[in-house]
Amino acid sequence: MSAIDRALEANEYFSRTYELPPDLPDPQVAAVMCMDARIDPVRALGFRPGEAHIIRNAGGRLADAIRSLAISQTILGTREVMIVHHTRCGMMRYTDDEMRAMFRKARGAIADGIAFLPFRDLVQSVRDDLELYRQSPILRQDIPVRGFVYDVETGKLTEVN
Amino acid sequence: MSAIDRALEANEYFSRTYELPPDLPDPQVAAVMCMDARIDPVRALGFRPGEAHIIRNAGGRLADAIRSLAISQTILGTREVMIVHHTRCGMMRYTDDEMRAMFRKARGAIADGIAFLPFRDLVQSVRDDLELYRQSPILRQDIPVRGFVYDVETGKLTEVN
Repeated sequence: MSAIDRALEANEYFSRTYELPPDLPDPQVAAVMCMDARIDPVRALGFRPGEAHIIRNAGGRLADAIRSLAISQTILGTREVMIVHHTRCGMMRYTDDEMRAMFRKARGAIADGIAFLPFRDLVQSVRDDLELYRQSPILRQDIPVRGFVYDVETGKLTEVN
Repeated sequence: MSAIDRALEANEYFSRTYELPPDLPDPQVAAVMCMDARIDPVRALGFRPGEAHIIRNAGGRLADAIRSLAISQTILGTREVMIVHHTRCGMMRYTDDEMRAMFRKARGAIADGIAFLPFRDLVQSVRDDLELYRQSPILRQDIPVRGFVYDVETGKLTEVN
């Protein structure tokens, strides 16, 4: 059975008892995190419905999140930002060049124009993305923007200073 | 209290009882969805740990998800794709020009170089993103790629054909 068909079956059950909570708050925070299949941001960070925009991509990289964050803040009113990278991330396994070679081999596709945004040093990658945030003219610079490492084995967030 | 400080407190509790399940499966599916604060993809689609990469951005737009999907498929081995947009999405409220005007007013920032990727027609936006997928040379064209609308009021997914 395909994973999508299983998800549709699960959604059928979910929707039978689902109710959108009334009087939802306006979202206050946007969290940028990895797409990793081991991470459940809502549970790990205890977000209640309506509280947080959750932006996810390979690595939790800011470069791919700028459009979404800009909308989250200026169109939809969030006023705090979390950038979260995590231990044992797939983005630490290969370099950009190694990834391009995998694309050439698997797809015959030339992926040389894509920055895959891998990293070697987890804490440094969070710092790099905090710095990239600070350089963006369209993102709010007058609100808290904090970086974290999430340990997939302990479920624990640690702030990067 | 800031939303981030609340999340850290919630994470403290979460991590006390958290255990990474052993023998996780390899992720099979990647789901592209909106960052919307009312949506909990893990619960709504019944994903178990290890099963799905979840990519989220404003609107669930494919244009922002191509790097992540490419990595998900060719580096990490997923072999199904869901693209999910949803009812009452913030991306249906304004046009690109209206969003740019909001940026000029609020930030004094020139956001004219950014495509905010809003849409007016929910089903059409899913079809547009399925079509954009089909045009990408670095994404897998030999696997199921299916589009859906998620109703935030009923929690129900409906396939877009």
